[in-house]
Amino acid sequence: MAIRTVVWGENVHEHKNRTVAELYPRGMHQCIADALNADPAISATTATLQEAEHGLPAARLAQTDVLIWWGHAAHGDVRDDVVDRVADAVWGGMGLIVLHSGHFSKIFKKLMGAPCNLSWREAGERERLWLTSRNHPIAAGLPDHFELENEEMYGDPFGVPDPLETVFVSWFQGGEVFRSGLTYRRGAGNIFYFRPGHETYPTYHDANVQLVLRNSVKWAHNPAARIADPNAAPNRPVESALEPITARGGSLHVAGEEGFR
Amino acid sequence: MAIRTVVWGENVHEHKNRTVAELYPRGMHQCIADALNADPAISATTATLQEAEHGLPAARLAQTDVLIWWGHAAHGDVRDDVVDRVADAVWGGMGLIVLHSGHFSKIFKKLMGAPCNLSWREAGERERLWLTSRNHPIAAGLPDHFELENEEMYGDPFGVPDPLETVFVSWFQGGEVFRSGLTYRRGAGNIFYFRPGHETYPTYHDANVQLVLRNSVKWAHNPAARIADPNAAPNRPVESALEPITARGGSLHVAGEEGFR
Amino acid sequence: MAIRTVVWGENVHEHKNRTVAELYPRGMHQCIADALNADPAISATTATLQEAEHGLPAARLAQTDVLIWWGHAAHGDVRDDVVDRVADAVWGGMGLIVLHSGHFSKIFKKLMGAPCNLSWREAGERERLWLTSRNHPIAAGLPDHFELENEEMYGDPFGVPDPLETVFVSWFQGGEVFRSGLTYRRGAGNIFYFRPGHETYPTYHDANVQLVLRNSVKWAHNPAARIADPNAAPNRPVESALEPITARGGSLHVAGEEGFR
Amino acid sequence: MAIRTVVWGENVHEHKNRTVAELYPRGMHQCIADALNADPAISATTATLQEAEHGLPAARLAQTDVLIWWGHAAHGDVRDDVVDRVADAVWGGMGLIVLHSGHFSKIFKKLMGAPCNLSWREAGERERLWLTSRNHPIAAGLPDHFELENEEMYGDPFGVPDPLETVFVSWFQGGEVFRSGLTYRRGAGNIFYFRPGHETYPTYHDANVQLVLRNSVKWAHNPAARIADPNAAPNRPVESALEPITARGGSLHVAGEEGFR
Repeated sequence: MAIRTVVWGENVHEHKNRTVAELYPRGMHQCIADALNADPAISATTATLQEAEHGLPAARLAQTDVLIWWGHAAHGDVRDDVVDRVADAVWGGMGLIVLHSGHFSKIFKKLMGAPCNLSWREAGERERLWLTSRNHPIAAGLPDHFELENEEMYGDPFGVPDPLETVFVSWFQGGEVFRSGLTYRRGAGNIFYFRPGHETYPTYHDANVQLVLRNSVKWAHNPAARIADPNAAPNRPVESALEPITARGGSLHVAGEEGFR
Repeated sequence: MAIRTVVWGENVHEHKNRTVAELYPRGMHQCIADALNADPAISATTATLQEAEHGLPAARLAQTDVLIWWGHAAHGDVRDDVVDRVADAVWGGMGLIVLHSGHFSKIFKKLMGAPCNLSWREAGERERLWLTSRNHPIAAGLPDHFELENEEMYGDPFGVPDPLETVFVSWFQGGEVFRSGLTYRRGAGNIFYFRPGHETYPTYHDANVQLVLRNSVKWAHNPAARIADPNAAPNRPVESALEPITARGGSLHVAGEEGFR
Repeated sequence: MAIRTVVWGENVHEHKNRTVAELYPRGMHQCIADALNADPAISATTATLQEAEHGLPAARLAQTDVLIWWGHAAHGDVRDDVVDRVADAVWGGMGLIVLHSGHFSKIFKKLMGAPCNLSWREAGERERLWLTSRNHPIAAGLPDHFELENEEMYGDPFGVPDPLETVFVSWFQGGEVFRSGLTYRRGAGNIFYFRPGHETYPTYHDANVQLVLRNSVKWAHNPAARIADPNAAPNRPVESALEPITARGGSLHVAGEEGFR
Repeated sequence: MAIRTVVWGENVHEHKNRTVAELYPRGMHQCIADALNADPAISATTATLQEAEHGLPAARLAQTDVLIWWGHAAHGDVRDDVVDRVADAVWGGMGLIVLHSGHFSKIFKKLMGAPCNLSWREAGERERLWLTSRNHPIAAGLPDHFELENEEMYGDPFGVPDPLETVFVSWFQGGEVFRSGLTYRRGAGNIFYFRPGHETYPTYHDANVQLVLRNSVKWAHNPAARIADPNAAPNRPVESALEPITARGGSLHVAGEEGFR
């Protein structure tokens, strides 16, 4: 079965900025979904901020293998309950790919536990992405480096936890570097942050970028059944301990009681 | 100068449960602070839930090198603004040591970005902590293993991100294991989670536990000046780029504008 | 195409110790290969110490997707040139799964860069393996824990680098713990260490162990084409630099010269 | 007591290349040692390839807290027994700082278990090192970036394991990037790789580079007593098990026997 992927787009600048509208007439989210659907192993649809529950009701998330997140101007408008729902889905095994300005999205900050800040410059300068890890599945089919002639600069220090793996590092024409492709795991969910994608440039039309997106969907996909309650903290009663023990000492809890949270 | 350490205690069960009151007549936080002050390199004071701003006003956090956190029954009563303030302090360089049931505290869950759940049993069973990494500074002076004759069981899977380092793993009499000592870094702040410390047992009177606490305060201490704004995302204007570049392409921002958050 | 897997067995104790011979009449390597071949996605064959080039000539390694390594009494008899060849294959993308006493094999020590030591006891005691990470692909289909009624004990501290991920931790009846399932990446190769498998017990007949082996083969498999020379250190001449530069300052090398190694 | 530091220099090009000789008339190793000795917390001496046992007899290593390694043209001339001795010292707790072309030294390759390869260009181009982690102790007192006007280029992919922490990333004028400051731990030893330092440029006279070197010596220093035998794999006999057990099942070893290696 194809990997059920939802591309979430903030869908704001497409309607406010003429450059963005011309580059992405059907929205950035649709451009990304089209690039994913070029691979029969992926089945991508879209969701946007403006839809009910931002297009991410619980029933849909339950049927989503991988979620891609692009947001920028309206991070603050995303409902906290939807963010919590997405986090639970990730902890239960849904893959998550966070793009570009999504570094400051509520969901990314929540999952990183870190400031996620960086320095930036919007000058349409050249970005060159280098692999740090040859043959990483996210880099399958890519050369050792590829260029985006016009991109926004993001500069390190990037306020994220040290990742499991650094897959890409970017060189910028104006003199900065940035760790552009980083993998994490939170609960049973695989997370990939991928830097490129400023809305005033044609980044998501780039063939190498599209290849990274397809690769990362496959990498992030965890085929195991979603964990029903990723926050459960079960009590293991004395009488059913795997090795025979007898309760000793003082206690706070009576038998069968839930733990404190 | 001694490491300025604040031991934060929830300070609830000491007043409600007779066993706890007898074990810790001046509160668990005071017992821990006393153990730390036995080392002249540490200067420890206490703060509790019941104090104004939970004893953690901004001015005090600014003068705190390392914060130790013990909470259990009243996680939900901790004010969100204080949690955010503590997270900012950690990101700016304050060390944080989270103890036992603090795995479900707001601050730990916020910094981990993960469910932080586990299984548990309150049976006063034997726990044996094993070093996984000899001569780690947090384990300085400890043997390869030490025992706590009566402890609550916490069992893996423990819903936290894979750590930088696993320092301790616990064996439990009833048949479970737990990764009991884990290091993380978030922003400029060092974080250590240490499992033992159920309130109905005399854990914080144990000499080995006290040694781990003193060691971990020294390990977590970052002597660098606190980062003033750990969330800053500075714009680096084209005209002051380190390498000469010229702005090209479309743009969203006018000169001098703040980025979206 | 099925994942081409070679199970390497030292094949010594099967011929010297009656217990081992009875448990594994066709050798431990054949028992493991049979367990893998139960899955049509895997095509497993065997190789042994006694064969020419230990059954691992260059041409065969070039056609091997994943290598499984079991050795114990004869680590020192493995030829260094074969070890170097296996390391090159791993760095170029071959998966490697090291089992039990393989912790002291030349290939594992070479790839870890660490002592790989541990404590041990051969008493046929109970081992219980706990997942630390639910839904990890290596643990697909497993319960949160499973038992081996008779196993050799291995105890932490285990002298290996902190892994990418800790997948299993073992509890032992005699009071020890051990990090039993660890993932690493070296070059383009995925590496998994899995603890169980002492030759005097029927461990490789256990259904859960066999499932871990099948899962780990799939996890370790990197479908990308093998990197031809994983040790290459190419010179990038000034005249073909991606950004125009002019050579400046002193130099050691004349144009076209190889670097020092 | 000051941190006893030995700066190991290959000491070849200083005698063969006029540029190098003029930049480092007393040798690169002496220049580095002088920079370290500017800090009273460090006591640095030197050792070179040409001395007996390369200046690293066992008795001296036993008194060395941190070893710094610079080599390039003569990696192959370093005796294997000295390399093994250094590895044992690291595993036992000695800090190790590997500089620049030391990426291809026997000791670094042994400790990394990876190819340690990279691309390179000797053109005296500009390198700009960026912090990725503010307030990391190795970066104490440094600005967010600093420049070396003339350096050799090293380019990613860099064939090393993903590190514990990435501390620096370099930007190169010719268009490449490189992960320039990486931390590892092997056994009880802290390891730091730091990229700059091509011998035909005055890198080790640079104040920022000297500060990194001093910081990294302090970071790498493990004050615990050296582990006597970092390769020991002790048997824990049944009769002294921490929990009472009885031996069961088949066995390979008779009581008191050493394990296989």
